[in-house]
Amino acid sequence: MRIAQVAPLAEAVPPKLYGGTERVVWWLTEALVDLGHDVTLFASGDSVSSAKLIPCAPAGLRLCGVGDHTASTLAMLDQVFRSADQFDIIHFHVDLLQYPLFRGLAGKCVTTLHGRQDLPDNLPVFGAFPEMKLVSISDNQRTPIPHANFISTVHHGMPLKLIPAAEGGEYLAFIGRISPEKRPDRAIEIAKRAGMKLKIAAKVDRVDAAYFHEVIEPLIDGTQIEFINEVGDAEKAAFLGGARALLFPIDWPEPFGLVMIEAMAAGTPVIAWRNGSTPEVVEHGRSGYLVESIEEAVAAVHAAADLPRSGVRAAFEERFTSARMAEDYLHLYRSLTSSHPQPTMPLVLAAA
Amino acid sequence: MRIAQVAPLAEAVPPKLYGGTERVVWWLTEALVDLGHDVTLFASGDSVSSAKLIPCAPAGLRLCGVGDHTASTLAMLDQVFRSADQFDIIHFHVDLLQYPLFRGLAGKCVTTLHGRQDLPDNLPVFGAFPEMKLVSISDNQRTPIPHANFISTVHHGMPLKLIPAAEGGEYLAFIGRISPEKRPDRAIEIAKRAGMKLKIAAKVDRVDAAYFHEVIEPLIDGTQIEFINEVGDAEKAAFLGGARALLFPIDWPEPFGLVMIEAMAAGTPVIAWRNGSTPEVVEHGRSGYLVESIEEAVAAVHAAADLPRSGVRAAFEERFTSARMAEDYLHLYRSLTSSHPQPTMPLVLAAA
Repeated sequence: MRIAQVAPLAEAVPPKLYGGTERVVWWLTEALVDLGHDVTLFASGDSVSSAKLIPCAPAGLRLCGVGDHTASTLAMLDQVFRSADQFDIIHFHVDLLQYPLFRGLAGKCVTTLHGRQDLPDNLPVFGAFPEMKLVSISDNQRTPIPHANFISTVHHGMPLKLIPAAEGGEYLAFIGRISPEKRPDRAIEIAKRAGMKLKIAAKVDRVDAAYFHEVIEPLIDGTQIEFINEVGDAEKAAFLGGARALLFPIDWPEPFGLVMIEAMAAGTPVIAWRNGSTPEVVEHGRSGYLVESIEEAVAAVHAAADLPRSGVRAAFEERFTSARMAEDYLHLYRSLTSSHPQPTMPLVLAAA
Repeated sequence: MRIAQVAPLAEAVPPKLYGGTERVVWWLTEALVDLGHDVTLFASGDSVSSAKLIPCAPAGLRLCGVGDHTASTLAMLDQVFRSADQFDIIHFHVDLLQYPLFRGLAGKCVTTLHGRQDLPDNLPVFGAFPEMKLVSISDNQRTPIPHANFISTVHHGMPLKLIPAAEGGEYLAFIGRISPEKRPDRAIEIAKRAGMKLKIAAKVDRVDAAYFHEVIEPLIDGTQIEFINEVGDAEKAAFLGGARALLFPIDWPEPFGLVMIEAMAAGTPVIAWRNGSTPEVVEHGRSGYLVESIEEAVAAVHAAADLPRSGVRAAFEERFTSARMAEDYLHLYRSLTSSHPQPTMPLVLAAA
């Protein structure tokens, strides 16, 4: 199948530092190539891919200091549109800008929404472009926009061998961004009440600096509660694999939460607040625990000591590999190409 | 002529508080209706117009708390596109989002760029959509993007009778936003060295609060240097008309600067730093003075006492009325419709 993947230009694919969406696009693209498909990746010019790369910006825009990505994204979409007849499927990972231009080609287009959908700003597009097909990354992500044209949920997946199963150890892990809705304060309270060591591997964005210095930093004693800054991809496997459990005590509707499946890949159970996607990702009592209070979380920390790590890893292998994600998307792509035969030329270009 | 005006959705047309672009769109639309044209205004639903209003959002988005205007603007552009065959000319006052969708109709489209163009973020669109015709609001505004497809400069204009000629008085006026690049500090120094009273009518945005409190507020003594907060439209005529001169000592490439022509309408000379559009707006020695140092500005303050206010008003009436602006745009519209005959149906809809 001739498939175009259209990535955000914010970061390279794969991202050099952060960038959950670009990371997922990379894994999906590689998995589709592995399955023998003819894949073209529209992304920043410093991307690296087994697919055919069409560079649409010199480099990832965020690290180049470009603040507004609109113009660059519009120019990329124009490139995609001009070559639309070369693809059976065009899969967008940008949120909004493609709808007006591609509505005439809606039959072979699909957009995965990667962000939270509980803010009102984006609502107008779902009413204005109802024929554009959407994919959610969790069922829960759809809750605020039930009338949008979702055709499926496809959970993210990552390469089978990226993070190997590990033996675990006697600390709890918190990883991500320090921000109020990630609730590192809850993680600290859970660790203290469970009598466990907590290692916090996190970045502090400038917007969260005050929260970090005023609320979190005073709670870090360097012995029981340890702050180790961010960990790179290379250290992440060891950090997650050495933990008894990952604490994910979020206070916001997380649309997916990649770190949960990264922990599961390492065999490390996930103790997650019941919010957003977590009930879809964590199998309570198998790959971790869903909790709704500090008390439940502390009990889960103790229970996690006896949870078989092989079962956690098996839950990852069954449901969250990039091969499974690619198969799910291929199933979707095939349903679109069979139900909506496409003209071989974009209509505008054909008429012009 | 059947003309569509496509306004930003940030503010109502006319704006309830700030909003230079929406104010200009309002004046242009009213002037085109006055000249007998069939004008349709795409704008927020709380807009008021003599043209046919197509409401594209319930109300101006900024005052509704909508942070990202992209989705609402895309939905508006879709409405414009679907009715494109009803117009001879489509005139956009939004910066970017229309290019991909309307490139097939480029012959009857024109976009006025209302903002500064010296930041790199927007550059990619000018290369990607070279057929889309642009209008600058000053020649100077084009400097950073000389290769963009500008077909004309049209200076802004305002209604002839909005601000009447007035007698002037013995203070200097500064009006606008308190921010480092507007250089209220320079205005204060000029007034002190000229031995004149200065009245500062300005708003302080949250982003500029520190600059105001640390740099400007200590210089305000309440007698010689007076701070009177913002003035509404009703008070503006009296504020400008009662001044000996407007100080406009900017330190950035102002693309136009409406306040200069508002002062001129009141007969009040403008003392402007030579930067951005100011040499195109101010006629040195007739409607004001172009200066490049505090010394020159102080000399201009003294000279302004003898500058005939009738000549300042005449400079406004000759070059900066909304009737003149409308005639300039009509001239452009006619050149487009005569050189590029249009199909009566948008190509995409016709082919679909």
